[in-house]
Amino acid sequence: MTESVSDKRIVRVDLADRSYDILIGPDLLTSAGGETLARLDCRKVAIISDVNVAPLYLDTLVESLQTDGIETFAMTLAAGEKTKSFDNLTAVVDFILEARIERSDAVIALGGGVIGDLTGFAAAIARRGVRFIQVPTSLLAQVDSSVGGKTGINSRHGKNLIGAFHQPDLVLADTTTLNTLSPREFAAGYAEVVKYGLIDQPDFFHWLEKHREAVFAGGDARIEAIAQSCAAKAAVVAADERENGRRALLNLGHTFGHALEKATGYDSARLVHGEGVAIGMVLAHEFSARMNLASPDDAKRIASHLKEAGLPTSLGDIDGDLPPPDIMLDAIGQDKKVKGGKLTFILTRGIGEAFIADDVPPSEVLAFLTEKHPQ
Amino acid sequence: MTESVSDKRIVRVDLADRSYDILIGPDLLTSAGGETLARLDCRKVAIISDVNVAPLYLDTLVESLQTDGIETFAMTLAAGEKTKSFDNLTAVVDFILEARIERSDAVIALGGGVIGDLTGFAAAIARRGVRFIQVPTSLLAQVDSSVGGKTGINSRHGKNLIGAFHQPDLVLADTTTLNTLSPREFAAGYAEVVKYGLIDQPDFFHWLEKHREAVFAGGDARIEAIAQSCAAKAAVVAADERENGRRALLNLGHTFGHALEKATGYDSARLVHGEGVAIGMVLAHEFSARMNLASPDDAKRIASHLKEAGLPTSLGDIDGDLPPPDIMLDAIGQDKKVKGGKLTFILTRGIGEAFIADDVPPSEVLAFLTEKHPQ
Ligand SMILES: NC(=O)c1ccc[n+]([C@@H]2O[C@H](COP(=O)([O-])OP(=O)(O)OC[C@H]3O[C@@H](n4cnc5c(N)ncnc54)[C@H](O)[C@@H]3O)[C@@H](O)[C@H]2O)c1
Ligand SMILES: NC(=O)c1ccc[n+]([C@@H]2O[C@H](COP(=O)([O-])OP(=O)(O)OC[C@H]3O[C@@H](n4cnc5c(N)ncnc54)[C@H](O)[C@@H]3O)[C@@H](O)[C@H]2O)c1
Ligand SMILES: [Zn+2]
Ligand SMILES: [Zn+2]
Repeated sequence: MTESVSDKRIVRVDLADRSYDILIGPDLLTSAGGETLARLDCRKVAIISDVNVAPLYLDTLVESLQTDGIETFAMTLAAGEKTKSFDNLTAVVDFILEARIERSDAVIALGGGVIGDLTGFAAAIARRGVRFIQVPTSLLAQVDSSVGGKTGINSRHGKNLIGAFHQPDLVLADTTTLNTLSPREFAAGYAEVVKYGLIDQPDFFHWLEKHREAVFAGGDARIEAIAQSCAAKAAVVAADERENGRRALLNLGHTFGHALEKATGYDSARLVHGEGVAIGMVLAHEFSARMNLASPDDAKRIASHLKEAGLPTSLGDIDGDLPPPDIMLDAIGQDKKVKGGKLTFILTRGIGEAFIADDVPPSEVLAFLTEKHPQ
Repeated sequence: MTESVSDKRIVRVDLADRSYDILIGPDLLTSAGGETLARLDCRKVAIISDVNVAPLYLDTLVESLQTDGIETFAMTLAAGEKTKSFDNLTAVVDFILEARIERSDAVIALGGGVIGDLTGFAAAIARRGVRFIQVPTSLLAQVDSSVGGKTGINSRHGKNLIGAFHQPDLVLADTTTLNTLSPREFAAGYAEVVKYGLIDQPDFFHWLEKHREAVFAGGDARIEAIAQSCAAKAAVVAADERENGRRALLNLGHTFGHALEKATGYDSARLVHGEGVAIGMVLAHEFSARMNLASPDDAKRIASHLKEAGLPTSLGDIDGDLPPPDIMLDAIGQDKKVKGGKLTFILTRGIGEAFIADDVPPSEVLAFLTEKHPQ
């Protein structure tokens, strides 16, 4: 599944005629960027980025593309979760059409998961689908959001409730860009790395317990962790592209996580996505223990690993007030993983043994949230 | 392909796991409506309609659904092409989420092609896709827009430039609803019926030449024409769902047609979609004759049939001023059927012999438009 070419790794996502490569390695923006894009044979690209990432990397990307004779258009948006709005979707689609990007041209997302999700959705609906290239610059985007074709924006009813499945044609994960990522955002992305271990790769989780510091320091361990994560996600996506089954496992920690993001008003000063996922994964393991499915020791072991990585692990770790448990339950009900009144959660029998439970009684969740609520 | 059950016809659209039935016949809203919907096993539906159609048919539909124990939510929008906007898309998606429509519930479009296109797009992106039922009430929607899964809205850059492929799970074409359609809208829909004959079914065109009056009068000839049209479209869509090839034939008359709709500011007082298509089909045949591909007699024969049906057939038939030819050419270039600078048109070698030409020089089109321009 993963293959090594000089110092870059290639992970293939197998989806019949929608298959694509994820390139992972240092300095891809300068060296491989233009070259690889040229292999897709697009004449024109529209690059969407945000105000933090564009000043750091846009020129390098543009230069590498223009050297290969590709015409470029660039648009820079505000940074942060609130950027995933209908208004920005409208603006990005308009920009793509204004630039006369044709179906065989491409739209490039240069940034974290916010830019990737929004841009991918715009690429999905402009002309009912133009080509799409992910250039993820956050750890979270490199190991998770840029892989698998889920795109979307938020609604006042909840996160990612509006979107499309639109696979990228290429993912370029330049690991050098991670050097400018804030430690907090790096840690947040690391939560998703840990997630793959918790879902079905206990050995990977154990490897992370040993190599956490090396992964944070950079170099080969980091590239290895990113490639393993992409391969893990690619395997799940290949088995279930449209989330009719197995793919839901990737939501481990996310049902609670999304509710927490909503509860904190998508205010990244209080909580970013990966932090919500970190708390959510601990909660999912604690809730599983409460339902007598797993040992409470697993939840403790995971919490301790995440804490060492600088991540929050309980509701009490979130600054400021949280809405009461019943409002949080309501947010969970609005999350898209709902079937006929019962809640769908990813629960677990232990580390690396996650499973889909689609019959979780809301009353149990309410009792659990009440117990965990800090106030 | 078409099958007769009592007085209703069933046309099957074959698309593997996205296959569905089109039911065509009188009084389907009252009799078969709720019954059929119940077979899809949804507990809840959100119905989207417009101010012309809702007062006539919404109560009947709601009653038939509620009788079958289905919970209903209804939203009524303004009528007309301008309704296919980003603002309305936002509002409809929000309505769907507010009603907590789940993936296994359904959204119903009750109305013409405008409501169908907008609602289908909203159903495609709400929760990344909820089930969708078309209840087309205009002739155009019954023979064309409700079949095939193309959904979308308009952009200031052109028609239908933003959208998704999202197949319905069921189409209910109640032919009784056509009795309240204005003669002008009926004629507009008839242009699309004629289109199927012109693409690849010369016998159907000849049949229409003989039975036009009966089709307009209603009864069996009308149902026959609708079923034939749906079957013709279903065959093309089954062969090429995502318009990578053959499906483009359905755009016969549409490249010119869309440019005319844009040129008249999507003002339905001046031109409705089917009227643009009628003129566009005549222009496509005339342009083919000008390129020595077809006989000019075919264009004349078609124009005379469309004129008898009450349709406009030349630029001069449009009320008010049109933009100069170069602006109209620009609109054609922004249309989505563009490949690398050359224009893609559906041209023809005669009645029932349409083909895709993807190398049409813009200069030839400009010369042709200049010649045809009324001013
Ligand atoms: N589509 C999916 O499958 C999927 C999966 C997981 C998460 N997501 C989504 O991803 C989003 C979170 O992604 P994220 O954590 O990357 O958020 P983000 O895009 O907001 O990036 C985090 C912050 O880091 C900044 N940044 C990014 N790269 C940088 C760099 N190299 N140097 C300096 N600053 C940099 C950004 O400007 C932003 O301020 C959420 O919206 C979530 O819903 C989607
Ligand atoms: N998705 C596709 O594949 C496809 C194909 C062809 C056309 N279209 C789209 O379809 C639209 C045109 O469809 P349309 O002609 O149905 O337009 P429409 O929806 O605007 O309907 C025409 C008019 O008739 C009214 N009406 C509809 N049914 C009625 C009834 N039974 N009684 C009285 N009034 C009724 C409507 O309120 C409207 O005023 C365009 O936007 C076009 O782009 C889409
Ligand atoms: Zn996540
Ligand atoms: Zn049409």
